[in-house]
Amino acid sequence: MNFLEKRILEEGTVEPGGIIKVDSFLNHKMDIGLLNEIGAEFGRLFAEDRVDKILTVEASGIGIACIAAQYFKTDDGKMPPVVFAKKSQTLNLSNDVYHATVASYTHQNENIIRISKKYLSAGDRCLIIDDFLAAGNAVAGLCEIIKQAGAVCVGVGICVEKAFQPGGKRLLDLGIKLCSLAIIRLDDSGGIYFVRREQ
Amino acid sequence: MNFLEKRILEEGTVEPGGIIKVDSFLNHKMDIGLLNEIGAEFGRLFAEDRVDKILTVEASGIGIACIAAQYFKTDDGKMPPVVFAKKSQTLNLSNDVYHATVASYTHQNENIIRISKKYLSAGDRCLIIDDFLAAGNAVAGLCEIIKQAGAVCVGVGICVEKAFQPGGKRLLDLGIKLCSLAIIRLDDSGGIYFVRREQ
Repeated sequence: MNFLEKRILEEGTVEPGGIIKVDSFLNHKMDIGLLNEIGAEFGRLFAEDRVDKILTVEASGIGIACIAAQYFKTDDGKMPPVVFAKKSQTLNLSNDVYHATVASYTHQNENIIRISKKYLSAGDRCLIIDDFLAAGNAVAGLCEIIKQAGAVCVGVGICVEKAFQPGGKRLLDLGIKLCSLAIIRLDDSGGIYFVRREQ
Repeated sequence: MNFLEKRILEEGTVEPGGIIKVDSFLNHKMDIGLLNEIGAEFGRLFAEDRVDKILTVEASGIGIACIAAQYFKTDDGKMPPVVFAKKSQTLNLSNDVYHATVASYTHQNENIIRISKKYLSAGDRCLIIDDFLAAGNAVAGLCEIIKQAGAVCVGVGICVEKAFQPGGKRLLDLGIKLCSLAIIRLDDSGGIYFVRREQ
């Protein structure tokens, strides 16, 4: 059992509808020491992938992505920037954006996610980082935006994947390198256990 | 001129309505090296304030708050957790929340921001960190939530304050320790210049 699986067993809970609550350390109150362990692990898993940019979706992926960026170096020796897709059209976001439509299970709505065309360029080697992978809609939306820009998705780093939802298979079927630090199944009584993906 | 003021002059732009765009390095594409400089500066400015928790509002404050937390230590020698207020009621946020209503100028709407009661306790010494201070509504909302919890606001760390909007005066009138790394005024032709607050 790795550090994240251990923490999930200690503090995570399962709510009706298969909602995994890890908001005491990951996506509401954030344990910055843990985020550094997660970032270091992503740095190790994607060390050979020459990451130019880290992409995520607001809001809960942002902190994880920013901490993780510290464990990467671009070709010029700097930490890669983090670009987060925005869920709302604000006055300080121009109209010149790549966009995709994303359904959210936990929010029970649909969002258009947007990244300014200025911040994603053809050929950019992008790593997607997010807290959860369930249906895979948010990641698929980011992949769609990466494709629109002519950029490349070199991989997807996920903290918690729900094996009982289709996101993992969906990304693997697209040939995407997917690394999830904890892959959760639920037993008949709703208890959490972890599985490993066959490589 | 400090490192952030310099970067704002190099890359920031002013849009109609006094919108300051710094999304090439601060709140859409995020320069993680710069965020570390910002975090280190907040660490220095609030070094004596015994910060237990860092609070912010989703989304653009989260990355800055998480990086900044690395420059603080709580009494037990750990980095303080970051708690971000959520703008929407999601399935994975319980109903047992502190909340406040916040108007957003850049989003041109009103949000209820929420923090789970589990993650804010009486006596917690909270530092608020955010990217922008304009009218001060988001920070005032967090202060209201801190008050509901019986916690203490030990200070507010802001990256970019608009001196031509009332947020700064509003917080100082409440007796709050406010440290803004760049305080912007606009000249008659809309050009940016910086002012210092009298101590």
